[in-house]
Order: sequence, then structure tokens, then C-alpha cells
Amino acid sequence: MYSFKNDYSEGAHSQILNALIETNLVQEEGYGEDQYSLKAAELLKERMNDADVDIHFLTGGTQTNMTAIAAFLRPYEAAVAAVTGHINVHETGAIEATGHKVLAVPCAKDGKLTPEGIESMLDAHPDEHMVKPKLVYISDTTENGAVYTKSELEAIHAFCKSRKLLLYLDGARLGSALTSKANDLELSDLPQLVDAFYVGGTKNGALLGEALVICNDVLKENFRYMMKQRGAMLAKGRVTGIQFLELFRKNLFFDLAAHANTMAMKLAEAIKEAGYEFLTPPVSNQIFPILPNKLLNELHQQFHFFDWERVDERYSAARLVTSWATKEEAVDAFISSLKETITK
Amino acid sequence: MYSFKNDYSEGAHSQILNALIETNLVQEEGYGEDQYSLKAAELLKERMNDADVDIHFLTGGTQTNMTAIAAFLRPYEAAVAAVTGHINVHETGAIEATGHKVLAVPCAKDGKLTPEGIESMLDAHPDEHMVKPKLVYISDTTENGAVYTKSELEAIHAFCKSRKLLLYLDGARLGSALTSKANDLELSDLPQLVDAFYVGGTKNGALLGEALVICNDVLKENFRYMMKQRGAMLAKGRVTGIQFLELFRKNLFFDLAAHANTMAMKLAEAIKEAGYEFLTPPVSNQIFPILPNKLLNELHQQFHFFDWERVDERYSAARLVTSWATKEEAVDAFISSLKETITK
Amino acid sequence: MYSFKNDYSEGAHSQILNALIETNLVQEEGYGEDQYSLKAAELLKERMNDADVDIHFLTGGTQTNMTAIAAFLRPYEAAVAAVTGHINVHETGAIEATGHKVLAVPCAKDGKLTPEGIESMLDAHPDEHMVKPKLVYISDTTENGAVYTKSELEAIHAFCKSRKLLLYLDGARLGSALTSKANDLELSDLPQLVDAFYVGGTKNGALLGEALVICNDVLKENFRYMMKQRGAMLAKGRVTGIQFLELFRKNLFFDLAAHANTMAMKLAEAIKEAGYEFLTPPVSNQIFPILPNKLLNELHQQFHFFDWERVDERYSAARLVTSWATKEEAVDAFISSLKETITK
Amino acid sequence: MYSFKNDYSEGAHSQILNALIETNLVQEEGYGEDQYSLKAAELLKERMNDADVDIHFLTGGTQTNMTAIAAFLRPYEAAVAAVTGHINVHETGAIEATGHKVLAVPCAKDGKLTPEGIESMLDAHPDEHMVKPKLVYISDTTENGAVYTKSELEAIHAFCKSRKLLLYLDGARLGSALTSKANDLELSDLPQLVDAFYVGGTKNGALLGEALVICNDVLKENFRYMMKQRGAMLAKGRVTGIQFLELFRKNLFFDLAAHANTMAMKLAEAIKEAGYEFLTPPVSNQIFPILPNKLLNELHQQFHFFDWERVDERYSAARLVTSWATKEEAVDAFISSLKETITK
Repeated sequence: MYSFKNDYSEGAHSQILNALIETNLVQEEGYGEDQYSLKAAELLKERMNDADVDIHFLTGGTQTNMTAIAAFLRPYEAAVAAVTGHINVHETGAIEATGHKVLAVPCAKDGKLTPEGIESMLDAHPDEHMVKPKLVYISDTTENGAVYTKSELEAIHAFCKSRKLLLYLDGARLGSALTSKANDLELSDLPQLVDAFYVGGTKNGALLGEALVICNDVLKENFRYMMKQRGAMLAKGRVTGIQFLELFRKNLFFDLAAHANTMAMKLAEAIKEAGYEFLTPPVSNQIFPILPNKLLNELHQQFHFFDWERVDERYSAARLVTSWATKEEAVDAFISSLKETITK
Repeated sequence: MYSFKNDYSEGAHSQILNALIETNLVQEEGYGEDQYSLKAAELLKERMNDADVDIHFLTGGTQTNMTAIAAFLRPYEAAVAAVTGHINVHETGAIEATGHKVLAVPCAKDGKLTPEGIESMLDAHPDEHMVKPKLVYISDTTENGAVYTKSELEAIHAFCKSRKLLLYLDGARLGSALTSKANDLELSDLPQLVDAFYVGGTKNGALLGEALVICNDVLKENFRYMMKQRGAMLAKGRVTGIQFLELFRKNLFFDLAAHANTMAMKLAEAIKEAGYEFLTPPVSNQIFPILPNKLLNELHQQFHFFDWERVDERYSAARLVTSWATKEEAVDAFISSLKETITK
Repeated sequence: MYSFKNDYSEGAHSQILNALIETNLVQEEGYGEDQYSLKAAELLKERMNDADVDIHFLTGGTQTNMTAIAAFLRPYEAAVAAVTGHINVHETGAIEATGHKVLAVPCAKDGKLTPEGIESMLDAHPDEHMVKPKLVYISDTTENGAVYTKSELEAIHAFCKSRKLLLYLDGARLGSALTSKANDLELSDLPQLVDAFYVGGTKNGALLGEALVICNDVLKENFRYMMKQRGAMLAKGRVTGIQFLELFRKNLFFDLAAHANTMAMKLAEAIKEAGYEFLTPPVSNQIFPILPNKLLNELHQQFHFFDWERVDERYSAARLVTSWATKEEAVDAFISSLKETITK
Repeated sequence: MYSFKNDYSEGAHSQILNALIETNLVQEEGYGEDQYSLKAAELLKERMNDADVDIHFLTGGTQTNMTAIAAFLRPYEAAVAAVTGHINVHETGAIEATGHKVLAVPCAKDGKLTPEGIESMLDAHPDEHMVKPKLVYISDTTENGAVYTKSELEAIHAFCKSRKLLLYLDGARLGSALTSKANDLELSDLPQLVDAFYVGGTKNGALLGEALVICNDVLKENFRYMMKQRGAMLAKGRVTGIQFLELFRKNLFFDLAAHANTMAMKLAEAIKEAGYEFLTPPVSNQIFPILPNKLLNELHQQFHFFDWERVDERYSAARLVTSWATKEEAVDAFISSLKETITK
């Protein structure tokens, strides 16, 4: 049975595996000081038109979030996130385990934060009897598949700057965001708009790996100490370096994300044509169609995917996730099943 | 220039890479619930003749140590380690960052702990004004290349049991230990002798990965929560699962370690023949010959390796590390250089 | 200007000061092992009809909450609290600073938790990708002045037991709760109904001090280690011991709380008579009358108290707090001012 | 039996108790914003000739050390202390519980750190695989009763400055240090020589309380957040404020310490006259005479005091502690007993 459960069901894109094989017996320095990691960092800086950012390769999203946020905050400072934010819900309290409260802002179905939402948290935390909100955490795409527009991100950036807040962007699915039809941001916009962010590899064709980009000078110092301390520095740093080198050597990172989006949009079009709505507008590799429970049950016989939330007695939203590896035949098969089931 | 600096200079053994390629497009569950991880765990249990241990795959040694020790201890409990122990010196305070003191016991050059050393720490910490020593950390091989004999480990085990201490073994180089000529332990002895240990993959032919084995029932519950919280649970858990499956499917783990030891012993023999002593007896893939500074300078022109410590005005100990990937020609070249330099 | 801002505006009841003076030059053991602390603990056990509880004296509410909760939880476990709970809002992230997430349950204006509210958090946290709810935190009186009835507490207790949750009661204002007209609990009921709680001294006539009562055997071991580690063990433990001895030697603890409640009820009656409503029913030493903003402005000229929340354009809720030290003349003066202002 | 076990056996000096009584019913702000705390801080600043330091009142030494050090360090930074330092041994891992390693420097019997000792720790921690030594912790008097001279402290200060280390002085017994015959420091010297220190009240006549003095501007920001978060901010901050006001209103702090020292010197002189040596020169309120075991056994029949360490088969060092409350008759009685026992 084909799976639309997530975007980490398969291994890595073949170019990445090939690069691992080709370089395999070259002797290299450990702990991220190998030539591949250094080159990959240079390449990323070029792509961002910013020679001053610091780039570090870590192994996963939770690890990257917890290591960065713990490095950036003083003990009494808190992170502000949408109530649906990954750090608030799906990291088993990783941020709190580093000592910091996550302040959860109620948000719309799309999972986006707004200056108003952030401000409400500042207003609610005026003095030393409460934590001090200091870092704003957003995800692009959000956990609900939405994409920040440039003007939205600029507004959050301006608000954060005016209130001396740090802005951190979780880019686990940044590839999908940047290649979404709803997107008008460039990778090279980000260093001007956020204090730090990461470029997700795990969910976009790498075996594992996230590239943390620290843009704000104040946050750069001694970050390698933090990585080592939090178990985030691989002895064979080459493993992540080589993968990011391959992703950004040409255009692989964007091509893979674009493929995932194309597959999702094909699914979404067919579902729309069949007359169904979505929980949030489908714009990235995660889509949330609202389908009759009966139809969902039929589709579950043929495909793996998650039910997301109950909408009413008869309808529920499903989550369908595509990836760099999604086969168009599988998408076609899903669409066929959908149509067949409807017309049964 | 060939490097004897460490055992993580290259990528992974070709069988492991091949296994990654062959399985690459199979869709699998995430977060360590893929079939490869499950099979690898079963295989390891068979090799240990113990169906009751719990096995988890993590990405590196520091991460494994910090996640396990933080899971096993109450907040006021401390780990006892040799002063040279990896957790005491080379993990950037990872254990302390989880809230626990590391009590450092003075030890011999070999880096081994003894019941007497552990007892001295218990004697020095009698009441609630001091931390409570609770977990004993040892490494096999030690950071200085030594190997615990079965009777030594049994003695520490018995002491720990009698004093209600947990015994944890860092097996970053367990392969080298178990295939050392100085060793009389079997992998299957360990579940009876320690409460938890890990089997090191990174330094024995894997791209990355350590297999944590929890033997004591009391320590098993909810460990996956800890892994997720500390950033130690890969979305693509298959990456470590496949590698351990390959390492233990047949005998690869032991073969690779034996090769590393053979290469080290060849170096050691030649150095002995040339009339030099060692800081500690050479028995594993790390050897510490004491050589004239002048000779060291010459060798540094041709090979990468670390100077370890000054012995006297004229002599220093070097550290030479071999690995699964060490080429015999490189060893021969080193020996030739040594001989040539001496006779110059 | 007289203050109704809080219940810690004055020093301590004179009997307590006298006890400090009378015992002042007796030489005693340090760190809570003095005869006064030991006797006070015995006395409290007698009052609770439970010889098996463990009693420790700490210096303040935040300290007691953080030390106890950090001692009781495993690293990945979380506390469940009402969204208005003190640990969630007013302790500057003290619980999170010990590594634990606080899961905030939406609640009614009274600040009470219910089994349904707790269950919703369990339902939302089903697996290891999220924290594990483990300890339920309630306050009696709540932060909003409400009191748990025996049947409410029994229901929470039964729910917690059935779901293997720990139940912890913050008794910063337990005196006011137990002497409220809305209360049907006895101090001696608590050891059967909660796993741990504290009896607040600071807000009921002591200079400082809270008595933590650990009822559940599993939570008792080595708690003094935690106290020392978290800076909660006074060298002169006598200071808190003597105070609790005095509070519970006869009936002082309850007499002082009853006085505070009586003063609050007198205020509440007069406000009711004047035709005003309350945010929550006034039953303890914190009352929340909803008054016209204009009236509030007038009263602020003569008395210190906090505005609590805006109700609508014309009305706001104030918080008036009485204490063991509140003078009846001040209450009468407030009532006179209220009446005068209204009739102006 | 009279006790020379420690300097916290009694309550508080009568002037302090009187001050608590006299101010008892004055209504004041909570959390350290009362007029007494504000005045006490002003007074201390005057005594230090430094209007720019920040002063906070906390309740005990461990609490002060852990709150300050956790506030001052980044997560990967470590404190350097003498191996006998209070934070290294007698605080149940309080510093480590905040995430920071304590690097223990071997030291002489007097418990003093030197620039050389500190430098050895810097040399041993060159890169990100190890913690970064950042804060130097010293105690004056030391845990072994010794006193830093001005030139010693200046040398440490200069070294710390040159190596960008913070210097923190634990002044639990600062009164005894500043009134020692071996001392040439003034209280007003300290703000120039250290980045932060505390003036100990608990061991010098207060019921409880330490005054933390933050001298370095960089360390001042938001410290009240830290205090609240770590349970170090008393609701009735007046309790510590009033006591420090009394200690420094006139000369009480120094008078009490001088009395303790005088009593200790009287004991020391008599012991010297009787022909005995000391573990370290007796200069403060803790003295360590080396006495025959037989004599110690006799004295233990009549006085409480601690045996400190075994010197050889026949001799051990005792620890005798005097305080603000030590009665001269008790000292005389001890001396008489000593002489009688010797001549028996």
C-alpha cells in the first residue's frame, strides 16, 4: 500500500547517495571541519547572497530547534510560538527540557503567527513575575501546510525588531515553502528577515540533516560548543556536509521540493474537482482535504495517510503528504480511487 | 598524507552503503519503527542471548551518553567516571547540562575504574549536602585504549550491585575491545554485567549510529520519550537501523574491529622492535608509543596523528589510531618511515 | 493609605515573633534537624491523623512548587495546571527551568481544574512525540479565590488515581480555604486525597515558610537532597520550624485564616448590599467585586488594591485581599468610602 | 553541652530581632520592593563607595551561588573552583543542576585559588569539545578558614581580566574575613576587584539572608527574573531587607564578625600555648587545631565540634567554629578543659 503519511518514508535522493559513495574513502577531518561541510556552507552563503551568516549542520529538526533556542535565550526568557507550533506540541518538551517556557499563541487553522498574536503575549508578560518573551518561533511551511508571504514575514520581522525580539524560522519544510505557488520569498531574503533559521534536508531528500543559518551576529559566538554539548555534532560531520553540498551544488534542493509540491497540487486539484473543500488552502506538500468519513474509510483500504481532525459528524480532514520521492503513478492511483469511490 | 588521527576519518563500509542503496525507495515508518530498525534490534538481542534487553539506535556517543544518563538518574544523583572518562572531559559538559555532576575518580594511565576508586567516591559523599553517586560510567576500550577483562568487569559489577549503583558502559569502541587479544569478554556477557551499554557504530564502519542496550528492567520505561526530547530520534530511523542490521547480519561488526586491531598491532610490533615503549600496553586500535620528539617531528611530515602527552624533555607519547578503513599499505609506509628515520 | 493589595504586606503574628525571641539563643542543629522543626513536623502529622507523611519546611511558594515538582517527575513528564495556575503564569517559568512543560488547561473564572479538563490534556498527548502528562497541579484557594469542595477534590483524586497521575495541591492560601464558609474539607482529609501538598505560612502570618507534606511513599525518598540542591534548605532551619510550631501548637493557623476570611466577607457583604456583583463568588480572603470604573478611581485615592480585569466599558473587577493582619477599622473605612462615593 | 560546630547554631542578634518587631505592622510592598530593602541596598552602596552596583537579597548561600552563577554563564560555560570550594562539594550539585560544570582545581590546605591554578584549567580546556571555563569562584574566608590578602585578590582579578573570566566571591563568611588580622581588604575594595560577590548574613548574626552585589554592568540586567524563577525572591522581602539594614545601619556587621574572630583567636592562642599546631594558620572564625586523638575524645565529652581530618595515627585536625553568639565563658571553659585534660 502506498503511503502519503509523511515526507520521510524513503531514504535519500540517488544523487546524494552517489555523493556519499564517491567520497567514501577520502580521509577527512571530523566534527564538521571536513572540506564537504565547509564547501556546503560556502555554497549556502552564496545562495543567500550573504557571506556573513554562520552555517552549522545538525541531524534533525527537534535537535536543531532545541540547540539553537537554548543557545539564544537567557534562562528566564521564553519562546513565543503558535499553539500548533512544532516546538509547542511535537517535540516532547525539548525546549522546556532546556529550561525555557514556550508561550503558545492561539492562531488560525493555517498555523501562522501574526504581530498581533505576538503582541498579546508581550502584553500578558509585563514583569519579572512572569517569563520574558524573547524569541518568536515560526515555521515555513507551517505545521498545517501554509506559507508566509514576504509581506507577512516583513511585518513580523519589523514587529520583532521594534520590540527587541529574536525571530527564528523552522525550515523543516522550507523547500516546499520556497517553491510553493503561494510564496514570494527567496532564500536570499531570509538573512535580512530573521535572526536564525534552518534549511531542512531530512524532509527534502537527504538521509538526515538540517542546515542552521545564524544571521544575527550576536547569536553566532561559540555555537559549536552548544552543538557538541547537546549531542548535535557528528564525528563524521561529512555525512551532513556532503548531502547539503549535493542539494545546493546545482538546484537539487529546489527541484525536489517543487516535485513534492507538484504532486500535492495534482492531488488537490482532483479533490477540488470532485467538489471537496480544504481545511486550509492547499499550497505546499501537505494538504488537508475535508472528505466524507465513508470516503476516507475506503481510501484507507488502499493508501496510508493520517486522519487529521474531525470536522463534523459526516466529514473529517485528512492529511496527505507528498515528497521528493512521491511517484506520479501513486498520485494518479489515489485520484482514480477517489473518483471511483465517489461514483460507486 | 595518510591520517592515523582517528577512527572516523572515512565514510562507511561498502556493505553498509550498499544496504542503504538497496533499501532506499522502500517506504517505511519513521522514528525507529521501520522494519530495519526492528530487525536490527532483534538480531542484536540474539547475539546477546537476551531477548529482554531494550535496544535503541542513536546518532553519536555524546548524545547516547547524555540521553541515557539523564534518563537513568534522579536530579540529585551523580555519575562516577575516571578522570579521563569521555563524559568528564570531552563532551563539553553534556552530562552537567542535563543537571548531573560527574564525579571524577583519579585513575591509572590506562583509564580504567576500579571498585576501590568508586568506593572512594561513595565514602566522600555520605549525605544530602553532597550529590549522591548513583551511576558508574566506564568505557571499553577506555579513552586510553585499554580493555577491561571479564574478571575486572565482574568485580565492578559486583561492587555496583552491592552498593546499589547502576553500571553503564560506553562502547564507542566496543568492537575494538571485544576483538582485542587482551579481551576475554563476549558481547553476550554484557547484559549480565552492566545495566546499560552501547555498541558503537560510528567508530566501527557505520556512517553514524550507536545501539544503546538497556538491560536493567527498571531503566527501560518510556526511553523513547527521552530520545525524542533530546533530539536523538531520527525521522528516518531507518538510517541507523539499516546500518546495524548490516553490521550484525553476519559478522561485519567484529571483522571490521578485528582489522583495525590487526593494523594497530602491526604498528605496535614494529615500534617495539625499534626499541620503544608505550604509555599503556598496546591492545586495541589506539596505541600510544613513546617516541623521541625528533622522530615525531619527522613522522609528522609524512603522516597525520596526534601528540598525546609530553613524557620528558626528549620523549613524548603519540596517539596512533587505526580503523576498519586503515590500509595495510599505509601501516607499512609508516613502519618504513619509522625505520628510515631511526637509521638516518 | 491602607493596602488591600495582598496578604504579605506585614511581618508576622506577634506570637511567632515571640517564639523566635524566646528560643533565640538556644543552640540547635542546622539544616532542619533542629528540635523545633522536628516537633513542628510531628505536630502537623498529628493534625493530619497521619504519622506516615513526610514534612519539609521551605521558604516560599515558587521554591516549594519547583523543588517538589522537579523531584516528582521524570524528565519527559509534564505538569497539568489551570491556565490561571500560579506555576503557569506567575513563577517566571520556574517549572520549565527545571525541565518540565506546564500543560495549561482552559478553565472557568474560578480557576478550578476538573477531571474533564485534565482528561482533555491526556487525550491530546497520546505518545512519545509529546510530553507525558503526569502531575496535576491545583491550588486551594485558587489564584482566583475559589475553594474546592470535598467532592470536587475526591473526583479529581479518583480521576488521577485511575490514570496514574500524581495530584499536587498548592496550599499557599490553604488556611483561607480550610476556614472558608464554602469549604467542607479538613486538613486531615488531604493526605488521603493528594500525593503531596503544602501548607502556606507566608500568606498566613509567618515571616516566611511553607510546609511541604509528601503523602505518597514513592515520592518521599531523598527529598532533602532536592531541597539542598535547589537552595531550599536553610542553614537556620529553626526559623521556619519555630514558626510552624507556633502556628500549629494551638489553633493559630486557623484563627489567623478565619480572621482574614471574616474581614473579606465583611467587605463582600457591604459591596453586595451596595448592589454590585463579583467575578467569582466571594468565599475566601481574595474577593473580586465588579465596580464602576469611576468608583474604582475614587477608592484608589484612599486605598491600595489591584484592578484585576476589565469587564466592559464601564465596569472592572478589582481584587481586594485581606489577611491575618487586616484591621477591622480599615475594612470599615473602605466600606464607608464605598458608600459615600456611591451616594455622592 | 556547648557547641563549636558551626556559626548558625543560634537565631539572630537581638538588634535584628528588635528591628523585625518594630517594623512588623508597617504595610510594605512585597518581593524586595519594600522601603527597608531599598534602604539597606543604598546603605551597602555607600559602604562600598559605589553607587553603581546592584544589590539583591537572597535567603542562603547555595541559593545565591546557584542563582548568580546560572544567571552569569552561557550554557556551555563552566565555573572554576578550588577542589574544596563550597560549590564543588557541599551544595549537592546545585551548580550542575543549573547545567554548568564545576572545574575543580587542586589547591593547598588553605583552600585558596591562584592564577596558576586557574590557568591550568584554561590550558586543559582549549576547544569546543570541552566546556569553556568562564567564571572563577573563590570564597573569603575559604571553606578552610583562610583569608585572601589584597595582593592575592588583585592578582586573581588581573588574571581573570586578562583572560576574560568573571570573578565571583562567595562571602558566606565575608565578615570574618574582613575583620581578620590577616586581612588588608576593605569592603569598598571589592567592587573594583570582583564581578560579583555576596555579603553573608546567615553566618554573621542574621536569621537568614545574603546580600548579592553585582558589580559588572554586563551581569546586572534582569537579575530579578532569575531570582523569581529560582525561588529566591521572598514575598516578604522585608525580612531580609530589615536585617541587612540593621547589620549595616551602624557597624553591627563588623562588630559581630570581630567578636567571632576574637573568640576564635582566644581559643587558638591557648591551643598554641599548649604546644599544638594547626592545619592552616588560625586567622578567622574557623580554626583547625591538630590534636591527639585521645585529647579529642576527652573534649568531645564536653563540647560539640567536628573532627575534620585524620593527620596521622595519633593526631587529627578538629574544626572549631565561633560566631557572633559565642560566649566567652564557653571559650574559657573549652580552654580549661583542654589544659586539664593535658595535665591529667
